[in-house]
Amino acid sequence: MIITIVGAGNMARSIATRALAGEHTVRLVDHSPQKAADLAEQLRAGAPPGATPDVTQSDAIGVEGADLVVLAVPYPAGLAVAAEYGTALAGSVLVDISNPVDFATFDGLVVAAGTSAAERIAAEAAPGVPVVKAFNTCFAGTLLGGRVAGLPLDVLIAGDDEEGKRRVAELAASGGLNPLDVGPLRRARELEAFQFLHMAAQERLGLNWSSAIKILS
Amino acid sequence: MIITIVGAGNMARSIATRALAGEHTVRLVDHSPQKAADLAEQLRAGAPPGATPDVTQSDAIGVEGADLVVLAVPYPAGLAVAAEYGTALAGSVLVDISNPVDFATFDGLVVAAGTSAAERIAAEAAPGVPVVKAFNTCFAGTLLGGRVAGLPLDVLIAGDDEEGKRRVAELAASGGLNPLDVGPLRRARELEAFQFLHMAAQERLGLNWSSAIKILS
Repeated sequence: MIITIVGAGNMARSIATRALAGEHTVRLVDHSPQKAADLAEQLRAGAPPGATPDVTQSDAIGVEGADLVVLAVPYPAGLAVAAEYGTALAGSVLVDISNPVDFATFDGLVVAAGTSAAERIAAEAAPGVPVVKAFNTCFAGTLLGGRVAGLPLDVLIAGDDEEGKRRVAELAASGGLNPLDVGPLRRARELEAFQFLHMAAQERLGLNWSSAIKILS
Repeated sequence: MIITIVGAGNMARSIATRALAGEHTVRLVDHSPQKAADLAEQLRAGAPPGATPDVTQSDAIGVEGADLVVLAVPYPAGLAVAAEYGTALAGSVLVDISNPVDFATFDGLVVAAGTSAAERIAAEAAPGVPVVKAFNTCFAGTLLGGRVAGLPLDVLIAGDDEEGKRRVAELAASGGLNPLDVGPLRRARELEAFQFLHMAAQERLGLNWSSAIKILS
């Protein structure tokens, strides 16, 4: 698949690393082209011996023809991106990975109760462009290697578009992760709620942002 | 500790089993004394060889002098129980394990957004009686044995009373479980949200109510 990642921060790095492990084509789009180019270079340099990482910096046109467009930018910036790309996203799927935490209080979310960042982004996207919530329950540091306590990370996936969820599950599985389809897009409410709790409890639990949520059986 | 459990259903059985494994005294209170007596008998009969399970059926007076009073009844029944016991709970700690799922739709909770069953129960309890949220992220079947995938179950604990949380953590740890203090009582909002998702996704994920949420690192 062609995976376009909007953003060049830590989550972009980790998702790109998993996507390259799955032998996908990765395009990096950032408002700073230099930052995206630097990350692409680092990803090529850091690839395992023998791997041929297909990753390039791209301008906004990089969203065209992508199978997935991952919004690896903080909420609410993703709202503007979803609106801005408009019909250029036709045929693609937007992936919202955000955690809309109220960092002023660290005591809740900035989205209203009874909705989610993912649903807000879906409302801004052009008609027919599906939005899938995924990866928000993963921390960048843990996602980079893709494992926790010797187990593949769970990637909890919520969305109303089955083909969109299938592509995200393929990205996750090919990158060595464990995709779990948890239902419709409105389940993003609970995914965002619980990851907020997971973030808020880091210091108390002495976890240092190296933990991950798993559903074990 | 003296652990009084209100209710005689599957969650009462599992929490009592863990409490007896931790060598605590267990009192079972149910509106059907016979049901509580039957459960007490089953717990005695099912105890490991050499164990001396201290478990009895009790009437409502069983809440007096208890270190913990576990409300193992569905929400909103716990609201009435918290109010009914009133000052008989002085010195004790109420433990709310409920998941206030809207079973008519299985698409959300019956408590209003921005609050939680635990906070509603705390509002009904007599002044000075702390409420702790715990065990709601555990299914009865998994909690009975206390392990999932070879690991001790996480017991996520939220509350505003440090001594109350300490007692619940002691119950969990002595019963072979892994207590995790995730913060103040209002974090019950996120605990209830995520367990709802966990319940709602059981069929889709083929889990058959034998799974558990863990925070791994």
